[in-house]
Amino acid sequence: MTVELICVGTELLLGNIVNTNAAFISEKCAMLGLSMYYQSVVGDNPGRLEEMVKTAMKRSDIIILSGGLGPTQDDLTKETVAKVMGKKLVEDQKARQEIQLFLERRGRTITENNWKQALVPEGCQVLYNVNGTAPGLIVKDDNTCVILLPGPPNELVPMFEEQVYPYLHKLQPEIICSKMIKLCGIGESSAETKILDLVEAQTNPTVAPYAKTGEVHLRITAKAESETAAYKLMEPVEEVLRQRFGTLIYTDDPQVTLEMAIYELLKANNLTVTTAESCTGGLVAGRLINVPGISEYLKEGYITYSNEAKQKFLGVPADILQKYGAVSPQTAEAMAKGGAKAAEVDVCIAVTGIAGPDGGSLEKPVGLVYMSCYCLGKVYTEKNQYTGSRSKIREYAVASALTLLRQAILDGMCFEN
Amino acid sequence: MTVELICVGTELLLGNIVNTNAAFISEKCAMLGLSMYYQSVVGDNPGRLEEMVKTAMKRSDIIILSGGLGPTQDDLTKETVAKVMGKKLVEDQKARQEIQLFLERRGRTITENNWKQALVPEGCQVLYNVNGTAPGLIVKDDNTCVILLPGPPNELVPMFEEQVYPYLHKLQPEIICSKMIKLCGIGESSAETKILDLVEAQTNPTVAPYAKTGEVHLRITAKAESETAAYKLMEPVEEVLRQRFGTLIYTDDPQVTLEMAIYELLKANNLTVTTAESCTGGLVAGRLINVPGISEYLKEGYITYSNEAKQKFLGVPADILQKYGAVSPQTAEAMAKGGAKAAEVDVCIAVTGIAGPDGGSLEKPVGLVYMSCYCLGKVYTEKNQYTGSRSKIREYAVASALTLLRQAILDGMCFEN
Repeated sequence: MTVELICVGTELLLGNIVNTNAAFISEKCAMLGLSMYYQSVVGDNPGRLEEMVKTAMKRSDIIILSGGLGPTQDDLTKETVAKVMGKKLVEDQKARQEIQLFLERRGRTITENNWKQALVPEGCQVLYNVNGTAPGLIVKDDNTCVILLPGPPNELVPMFEEQVYPYLHKLQPEIICSKMIKLCGIGESSAETKILDLVEAQTNPTVAPYAKTGEVHLRITAKAESETAAYKLMEPVEEVLRQRFGTLIYTDDPQVTLEMAIYELLKANNLTVTTAESCTGGLVAGRLINVPGISEYLKEGYITYSNEAKQKFLGVPADILQKYGAVSPQTAEAMAKGGAKAAEVDVCIAVTGIAGPDGGSLEKPVGLVYMSCYCLGKVYTEKNQYTGSRSKIREYAVASALTLLRQAILDGMCFEN
Repeated sequence: MTVELICVGTELLLGNIVNTNAAFISEKCAMLGLSMYYQSVVGDNPGRLEEMVKTAMKRSDIIILSGGLGPTQDDLTKETVAKVMGKKLVEDQKARQEIQLFLERRGRTITENNWKQALVPEGCQVLYNVNGTAPGLIVKDDNTCVILLPGPPNELVPMFEEQVYPYLHKLQPEIICSKMIKLCGIGESSAETKILDLVEAQTNPTVAPYAKTGEVHLRITAKAESETAAYKLMEPVEEVLRQRFGTLIYTDDPQVTLEMAIYELLKANNLTVTTAESCTGGLVAGRLINVPGISEYLKEGYITYSNEAKQKFLGVPADILQKYGAVSPQTAEAMAKGGAKAAEVDVCIAVTGIAGPDGGSLEKPVGLVYMSCYCLGKVYTEKNQYTGSRSKIREYAVASALTLLRQAILDGMCFEN
């Protein structure tokens, strides 16, 4: 069954607000196994809205409209849908009472235009609204089901969850489930090349790669009559992905971030960690401290932006800084070793680089970042060259540093890599 | 002139991501005075995309498409537009070089599918991409101008600002100019209350407040036949805002961030600074180090997540930690004083709080954050109570800490407040 979304509101066309309703409704419809092929945004303009509703009715089974149900003159969604579907508007007594109650409870004066919100297309199902004055509506004809919802997310979200979702669930016996396999330490193209055969051969389940900063996420999606059956279908694909990507996979839990995966590794192996940052200046520690409970394993971190600070806190020898420069594999290594020693911890991730826009040279261009991870006596050093703005370079460096930190721990713990 | 937006991506239809590109592009087009009547989202499906592009070409002068320019099989936006417009795809030599450079710099293996991104519709204008491998494209025929942009916001946003905005600006004779006055240290409601008379009386120019994390931005917008005329119109409004908000205004330059404004203050007064962070764990330093050139004034920073680290690095007395706890005004103050002393600097901003989700109590709930700024002998301490997730609390704490840092410097320098 197909569903189509039309969001009505000039404020969306002007970019005054981000369309979070679209993401919310789309995600719910995807979970229900409804196929959404189109989303549109139109302003509060009856002509264009009418044209849009007519087009949608030709190509989709269910149409969800959000917005334009308010009491004002330019709220015309209901009127337009009623016109297109050839339905008269009649007053719904319960809707009128609810509006009155809602406004009286808030001590608001009821104005004549409020009663406009109690008008509904004849024969429709009314979705009463406890969070606002605009009732939602389900209007049907022989071919199409049109669902009208109020625009404000604090009204739309509970109405959808409590009334629309159960309604749609009854219409739709099929279920779509998906699973996200998250990778670090590999680029999108390389990841895709490794699964090209799967992508090309796929019908159900399907696999698709998504690029994130310093990460690639692979989504497996399956359609089946039940959740159990869908997960059963995904199992062999997941198995293949695990074989091909090994420890590049850091989680299959959509809620788990890279820093959370690192936290779990620290916890499982009872390892303490610190950070020694130059160009990323606190952002690696900032990511790790995103994780509640990290305080057991990370007690302190070093922001050593100057050469003096690298010597003072991390004991980086002056001759290394002089001979190789602050941005060098030797300095990165000395920072990692020195940080671990100073903080008396098992693991230290160190980053030094040129974030730009100035400070680059032919030999050491802007975007050159060395990172080194000390882990229980071993040191892992990596050279990276990024492009883009200062903040992009730093963001990518943070992602690479976390990836290196994870790989060093895995290697240090003798996991297979 | 009318503009229409088509966002391509199955992840949008599935609700995996929120369409922030739509809000961004819409806002920019509104600023340019372009009329946007339609926005659509379609999946990575050539048939439906083709139908959408054809419809858009009939009703709009400019069509902006985002997404579907990647190297993979299901990225088909460019191919579809070329087909609809009857253009052949040819390889662009410079695009090929840029892709090669981009991937080589990152040490990525170039796979055959990468070269697909160097193909462009014949006779088009190529928008080279420094932040990714997909070039943007401007393809024209007699009636329509079609602009194709990569989907990832970190590629789309700079490409739009640097290349598309100036291009569209030339097409559009009417001028809408706007100016952003950025405030810190005041909430949105308070700011709005202070300008309610201006908002209500406005026609041209107009003033509107926008809430950002820990900041409020006031946008003045004027419409005129020339830029000079528009700025002339804005002058008296700006003057009134300056009178009402005084030093709460940290900049009127859209490019200037709060950390940049702080950098300018440090530079103007030749002040050195350090950071002493507990719950924000490096993020305050991370924000300051966003600014190129900050290394002159910030040499090092302290991430003191444990009580031991607070004692070791900052010399916070054990009895203060024991008597008042790590999250207390006394500890914040001792951290700020101790940080300045340890780093031998003029200014130190210190943050300690409970980011949650655990660790809260009735007396000290989750979201309680103390911050203290030492500046040339004086100490400024502030209590804040935030709500929301761990990351929201930390993000707000960083913004407040930077605001306090700025106010302390202004006060220390005897600026009027």
